[in-house]
Amino acid sequence: MTHTNATRTEKDLLGEAQIPATAYYGIQTWRAQQNFDLSGVTLSHFPQLIRALAMVKQAAARANKQLGYLENSRADLIETACQQVIDGVHHDQFVVDMIQGGAGTSTNMNANEVIANVALDLMGHDKGDYQQLHPNNDVNMSQSTNDAYPTAVRVAILLSHGDLVVALRSLQLTLADKALEFADVIKMGRTQLQDAVPMTLGQEFQSWATTLGEDVERIAGLAELLTEINLGGTAIGTGINADERYGKRAVSELARISGYPLIQATDLVEASSDMGAFVLFSSMLKRLAIKLSKIANDLRLLSMGPRAGLNEINLPAQQPGSSIMPGKINPVIPEAVNQVAYQVMGNDLAVSFAAEAGQLQLNAMEPLIAYNVLESIRLISKAMPMLEKRCISGITANVDVCRAQVDNSIGVVTALNPHIGYDNATRLAKAALASDRSVIDLVREEALLSPEQLEEVLKPENMIRPGR
Amino acid sequence: MTHTNATRTEKDLLGEAQIPATAYYGIQTWRAQQNFDLSGVTLSHFPQLIRALAMVKQAAARANKQLGYLENSRADLIETACQQVIDGVHHDQFVVDMIQGGAGTSTNMNANEVIANVALDLMGHDKGDYQQLHPNNDVNMSQSTNDAYPTAVRVAILLSHGDLVVALRSLQLTLADKALEFADVIKMGRTQLQDAVPMTLGQEFQSWATTLGEDVERIAGLAELLTEINLGGTAIGTGINADERYGKRAVSELARISGYPLIQATDLVEASSDMGAFVLFSSMLKRLAIKLSKIANDLRLLSMGPRAGLNEINLPAQQPGSSIMPGKINPVIPEAVNQVAYQVMGNDLAVSFAAEAGQLQLNAMEPLIAYNVLESIRLISKAMPMLEKRCISGITANVDVCRAQVDNSIGVVTALNPHIGYDNATRLAKAALASDRSVIDLVREEALLSPEQLEEVLKPENMIRPGR
Amino acid sequence: MTHTNATRTEKDLLGEAQIPATAYYGIQTWRAQQNFDLSGVTLSHFPQLIRALAMVKQAAARANKQLGYLENSRADLIETACQQVIDGVHHDQFVVDMIQGGAGTSTNMNANEVIANVALDLMGHDKGDYQQLHPNNDVNMSQSTNDAYPTAVRVAILLSHGDLVVALRSLQLTLADKALEFADVIKMGRTQLQDAVPMTLGQEFQSWATTLGEDVERIAGLAELLTEINLGGTAIGTGINADERYGKRAVSELARISGYPLIQATDLVEASSDMGAFVLFSSMLKRLAIKLSKIANDLRLLSMGPRAGLNEINLPAQQPGSSIMPGKINPVIPEAVNQVAYQVMGNDLAVSFAAEAGQLQLNAMEPLIAYNVLESIRLISKAMPMLEKRCISGITANVDVCRAQVDNSIGVVTALNPHIGYDNATRLAKAALASDRSVIDLVREEALLSPEQLEEVLKPENMIRPGR
Amino acid sequence: MTHTNATRTEKDLLGEAQIPATAYYGIQTWRAQQNFDLSGVTLSHFPQLIRALAMVKQAAARANKQLGYLENSRADLIETACQQVIDGVHHDQFVVDMIQGGAGTSTNMNANEVIANVALDLMGHDKGDYQQLHPNNDVNMSQSTNDAYPTAVRVAILLSHGDLVVALRSLQLTLADKALEFADVIKMGRTQLQDAVPMTLGQEFQSWATTLGEDVERIAGLAELLTEINLGGTAIGTGINADERYGKRAVSELARISGYPLIQATDLVEASSDMGAFVLFSSMLKRLAIKLSKIANDLRLLSMGPRAGLNEINLPAQQPGSSIMPGKINPVIPEAVNQVAYQVMGNDLAVSFAAEAGQLQLNAMEPLIAYNVLESIRLISKAMPMLEKRCISGITANVDVCRAQVDNSIGVVTALNPHIGYDNATRLAKAALASDRSVIDLVREEALLSPEQLEEVLKPENMIRPGR
Repeated sequence: MTHTNATRTEKDLLGEAQIPATAYYGIQTWRAQQNFDLSGVTLSHFPQLIRALAMVKQAAARANKQLGYLENSRADLIETACQQVIDGVHHDQFVVDMIQGGAGTSTNMNANEVIANVALDLMGHDKGDYQQLHPNNDVNMSQSTNDAYPTAVRVAILLSHGDLVVALRSLQLTLADKALEFADVIKMGRTQLQDAVPMTLGQEFQSWATTLGEDVERIAGLAELLTEINLGGTAIGTGINADERYGKRAVSELARISGYPLIQATDLVEASSDMGAFVLFSSMLKRLAIKLSKIANDLRLLSMGPRAGLNEINLPAQQPGSSIMPGKINPVIPEAVNQVAYQVMGNDLAVSFAAEAGQLQLNAMEPLIAYNVLESIRLISKAMPMLEKRCISGITANVDVCRAQVDNSIGVVTALNPHIGYDNATRLAKAALASDRSVIDLVREEALLSPEQLEEVLKPENMIRPGR
Repeated sequence: MTHTNATRTEKDLLGEAQIPATAYYGIQTWRAQQNFDLSGVTLSHFPQLIRALAMVKQAAARANKQLGYLENSRADLIETACQQVIDGVHHDQFVVDMIQGGAGTSTNMNANEVIANVALDLMGHDKGDYQQLHPNNDVNMSQSTNDAYPTAVRVAILLSHGDLVVALRSLQLTLADKALEFADVIKMGRTQLQDAVPMTLGQEFQSWATTLGEDVERIAGLAELLTEINLGGTAIGTGINADERYGKRAVSELARISGYPLIQATDLVEASSDMGAFVLFSSMLKRLAIKLSKIANDLRLLSMGPRAGLNEINLPAQQPGSSIMPGKINPVIPEAVNQVAYQVMGNDLAVSFAAEAGQLQLNAMEPLIAYNVLESIRLISKAMPMLEKRCISGITANVDVCRAQVDNSIGVVTALNPHIGYDNATRLAKAALASDRSVIDLVREEALLSPEQLEEVLKPENMIRPGR
Repeated sequence: MTHTNATRTEKDLLGEAQIPATAYYGIQTWRAQQNFDLSGVTLSHFPQLIRALAMVKQAAARANKQLGYLENSRADLIETACQQVIDGVHHDQFVVDMIQGGAGTSTNMNANEVIANVALDLMGHDKGDYQQLHPNNDVNMSQSTNDAYPTAVRVAILLSHGDLVVALRSLQLTLADKALEFADVIKMGRTQLQDAVPMTLGQEFQSWATTLGEDVERIAGLAELLTEINLGGTAIGTGINADERYGKRAVSELARISGYPLIQATDLVEASSDMGAFVLFSSMLKRLAIKLSKIANDLRLLSMGPRAGLNEINLPAQQPGSSIMPGKINPVIPEAVNQVAYQVMGNDLAVSFAAEAGQLQLNAMEPLIAYNVLESIRLISKAMPMLEKRCISGITANVDVCRAQVDNSIGVVTALNPHIGYDNATRLAKAALASDRSVIDLVREEALLSPEQLEEVLKPENMIRPGR
Repeated sequence: MTHTNATRTEKDLLGEAQIPATAYYGIQTWRAQQNFDLSGVTLSHFPQLIRALAMVKQAAARANKQLGYLENSRADLIETACQQVIDGVHHDQFVVDMIQGGAGTSTNMNANEVIANVALDLMGHDKGDYQQLHPNNDVNMSQSTNDAYPTAVRVAILLSHGDLVVALRSLQLTLADKALEFADVIKMGRTQLQDAVPMTLGQEFQSWATTLGEDVERIAGLAELLTEINLGGTAIGTGINADERYGKRAVSELARISGYPLIQATDLVEASSDMGAFVLFSSMLKRLAIKLSKIANDLRLLSMGPRAGLNEINLPAQQPGSSIMPGKINPVIPEAVNQVAYQVMGNDLAVSFAAEAGQLQLNAMEPLIAYNVLESIRLISKAMPMLEKRCISGITANVDVCRAQVDNSIGVVTALNPHIGYDNATRLAKAALASDRSVIDLVREEALLSPEQLEEVLKPENMIRPGR
């Protein structure tokens, strides 16, 4: 984009302003830029939100055309302009800060103005010549920010939701593959960080696959929450000034355009101010973040070492670890996952504060909610393939280390419990610890079990499943 | 309870201790009391948790008896002792602090010891004569804290869950009744705290009923999450030392005893450490708390006054408001609801921290999770009837104040928009504000609409629904 | 306390109620009990708050007497009644729930009523005979809840603050003692859970002592924040209806009674609604909680084992760890510290929500703030001696394990860096890892350094401090 | 920047990579880009962090030169290269994501590589020709990420801190100016959103100025926390491989370069892992955010209207409020302030999680802490001038509305209390409410006070200060 100092003049209720001549956005977007110089993260950081806004405008144009409020030629131009935005053109024109006052009005107007000026371009008119086609009267027809914007945010989350689920499922499958690969690696299980009883490394990886698998379903289920939209409610959900047939038509067109089974909320007054769907979706992201963080913590614990730690597994090296300590490799990928998780939990709190701050017929803090939910989806959607491809898939097991820890453990005494009695078991556990010897040696020494019995009891396949 | 200094001696691996002679709990409970003098809130604060623990012990006894590991007479005594606890006897013997190390071992042992000593009482033996019936060997047979305790926590939540849903539904219905009562009270809707367009007070109350109604379904749905339990997994989910038939039987008995459709988790290793169900349930409580807080905030806004505020509604007086300001009445009930909501959000954060801190095969922080989830359920379950019966049901409307605000509003100009045009509407809005007059007067004065037309447009029933 | 059904009748603006005949509290307390059946945690859970309330009432009585508003005899009786409460008598009469609407009015009235009735007892009058001495007119004279209550909360925190600092300093000193004890135990330092370079166990313990030492100063410094009180501001800080000399006198009396250097805030309007001191104090508790949690995490990491973990230190056993795994001992004390820390962070969030919810001239959510700050102080004040006496002081080091990890480490190669060059060091690190041998052996083998040089470089005292 | 496909080859321990030929960063930066594609917010978003990194490198080069480890010519080139970065050149070369694993190693290496290549440019060598001057050996000499990075983060916060304090003080002064402007505007004070007693609008604005003024001091005081740095501690604080004179010299040079009174921490082991300063600084930002949010909430309450609300003040219009509601102006600036506050609280939580996750000798999550603290400073530093210049400075008072609310209030009866007695006052309050009349009228009617007395009592100057 070449920058010149050329400008055009636009005006609104508050007066005139000079807009860059090449800009597709207009005066209200410009005012929002002046007003909200805050995070430095603009709408263009979230392409799915921009696409969703254009879909809403396209659906509204179709409904207005069908009901005879918008003449065909104008409607078609708006449709074409919207399609360009949906296809990824003009995203750099969405310049408003994600943190903004006004309950999303600036975002909505940014969309209205860009679409209007693109349409004016298509008509061969100058940008800003709103007499020909107007951001409010035409592009925003039958809409209020208060129904168009929340609808767009919901659609944006739905558009992002697919990638999230795909990334989650892929991570789950890779963990399950690893579980098969490590199915025969016997190791010590640990509770409260203390040696407990044996298990396989495969069982451990499978438990991670299982826990993420539960979230695949759960997140997919929550998408349904977001398909209930308030389009047609206009200013406060009473639908003032909109044709009574408009809402259903617009919703149905938006369902067609977006490909999601959208429905209009039954109680549009409630739907105008309720942030419950976002709160729960953000909470679900928090739950997933907690699970990912726990897995990352475990990976870092199990790969402690290489000498003075558990050293059960090796994470693939992704970058040199230290300029001062030769050969040091660090678990940088799990560490990044942890940090993403912490950010997602921070974002969830911002969502909670913003949701609680809704008042009467609207929640003015919805832009912050949209920002944080979309950011959390982005972070998790990027962290999961990172974890999968740069860490999990390259993990190797130190089979001998794992096995030696079992053979050397006090914990195998638990498996002997039913055979030698709890009292004997306790005595041997204490003696082994005190003498720094192995429990198995002591059992052999005391001939409490025959060598065949002992071998049978201590077979990995017998220690890692129920049986008495 | 009369206190004497009489004690009995008990011992465990760490040595001997003097236990109050009348106590049904034993040495491990006593050690936990010494170790964990923290919150001062003991298990007995949560009767449903105690009942759930006894149900788990009862189910285990039945399963052990069926499989021949526990002889009939002992099993029956344990069953009877459990039943007493389920029926509410001996709750004062559950003396361990809700905040405790050990992943719930102290809670589990408190239950084992009380049940054992109650059974010893029934047998005519002295308390502490564990040769006859042992807290670990008999009451805790085939169990580990790591499966018995998480199971009990889930059952405790299920037991509390019913009251929560009943209280929520009742509040919803009372709000819906009020919505009908106020169906004809026309008032100004507000967005971003600024006058917007008219609505009815009934629509406003109905929006609160609707938003809570969504949570009735959602919370009921989440109960399902909690019915998946890990009983039978023993120490780390591998089921070591338990008969392979035990788990299913114990789960099935517990389902019968508790009345909930419990099932055993498929991946017991995962189920031993996963806190996802609690995280999501706590998040759902947070969502409900946010909704309740928003309603409380709205109630406080609408009842501002009596003179220098909105004064649309009157909350029933529950207590004198001030010693210094005669006649002042405060919205104490909504204020208490807000505070409960904030506490629930704080508790949810504690749950998040504790859940993220799980390591390897167990989450040692589960006692804190149990405490906070149960406390949040308690708080919300008590706050909702308080709100319903001490506030909502007694609210009255100041019909004339509401109506006057509409008549005097600038916002009605929105309804004139389609009839006099956006430009005229904007001009009149400005003029009315500048001259401190009513928009309607100006319309009349300029004869922009006939008196009949004006009356038609401004009919409440026309301003509060779609139409163009 | 013996319970009978006997009651007395009291009345207020809202009507009459039956109060238990033996109760020192009155009708407003009774109403609050009916209204706020929420947490089940009553004022009596926090003796310092009750003492602080009585101190405020005592100071006010003195000031009112000095200014001639309260006759000497009545003032003296109120003083005596207050002194009884300060001395710990009648605490069971403070029965209002800590979570309450009304900005503390119910707490203030609970104090006014108890003190009035105690004074009536002293006079030989019946309880409830407020004609003789009135809870509002006499005990609450020249006060509003809005100045008396926030002042009492500040004094309550100051009263609790001393114990907190003492417990913290004691823990710090015990850690420093241990640091001396372990000054010669050489071990591997770890960054990002990977082996780094050597250090001593003493350095590690000292770092914990140091980090807590910083908070001793910081917390002591924050006490100053709380010494600025708004007594004398009455309803909204304008001081309406109070003698202009009253405020300074009451503050000065309260300083004398409590022993803290209290001063009256300069801007009483601001001081009436500002919660900043509580927010920052709670944040400071959060910081301390984070530090304690980090120490607890480290203790649990270093004591992992006994065989399949780092096993550098042994925590003293406090209770048997498992019914199913013989001989298992768990780090229950650090686990309890972690949970206290998580709760304190949850409480801090509740404080944040409540503080943000202040509106105009008052923060109606102050009772929740008081509850959570006092609860966090209590938890931390109890967790620190628990950690000190039941864990830190009994820790022993596994000196040989620590030393072997250093000898066997790759990380010592860092110390050789300046002597054999970074390239040689990197090559040896890789070779040692690949061949599962020790770096030192390889250096010896290649004769890169003379045995004397090698010994010199690898002396513990040379590896654990600067030097090149 | 023109993009070509030209690349150069660089290699490290893990192999080779193709680096864009024009890039000043090198292979380790490139690996970090590949590894951490997460937030999309790069280091270049925070210029003060980049400047601080260059200052640390410059200080280290000076110290290394003085001690004879780095020859003069190389040291001078590094100094010059650092100066360019300090002066704002090359900031676009800082391309690593703010969320990254590795405890800041990637950030540190991004700085090392850019500075090395800039120096190579100055020498006339090719980029990447590290034989001539090496990112690790020369630029990073005597440093570890573990001391250089935390030091840079502290300096970055100090560099940002000045703007924060300036913005805060300016906002405070503007509020104080407004307080003077509104000193004579009498209005109703409100507690718990209910009419209380009279005050002036000036007192209200002054309370906001006062509350922010307290934070000016407090934040300035906290800067001291950040001046304690761990430069010289190298890998884990033991100073391994660094000349023992190096640390003090480097710190002293950095103090000179940055202009801040930096000192070296006494316990460098503690200082390597401790995040306490960041936790407390973030908490202080949270406190400020809470205060700003409370002020924003109050502004939105007081400007409710224009007809159906309190309407005491008018906020200056900054953008049209609604496309559907003609003439509607919304409080967009305070709304943006609220959202910034909520984000800051979310960020603070992310900091808490990251701080608690530190383990043993390092906190691997420090990059997230740096990100969130710097982002919160940025947000608040931008939100305060926005609030000041786009809102506070243009506020006007509706003097007549304010006065009428006082005259019409029930609350003035409080001022009559000492003159007509509490019983009369209560009776009149009730009667006024019931008859919808003014208290003053009723007093006049009953001739309870002479007209002169009444006028005296109700003089604004008498109702808004102490007096009896």
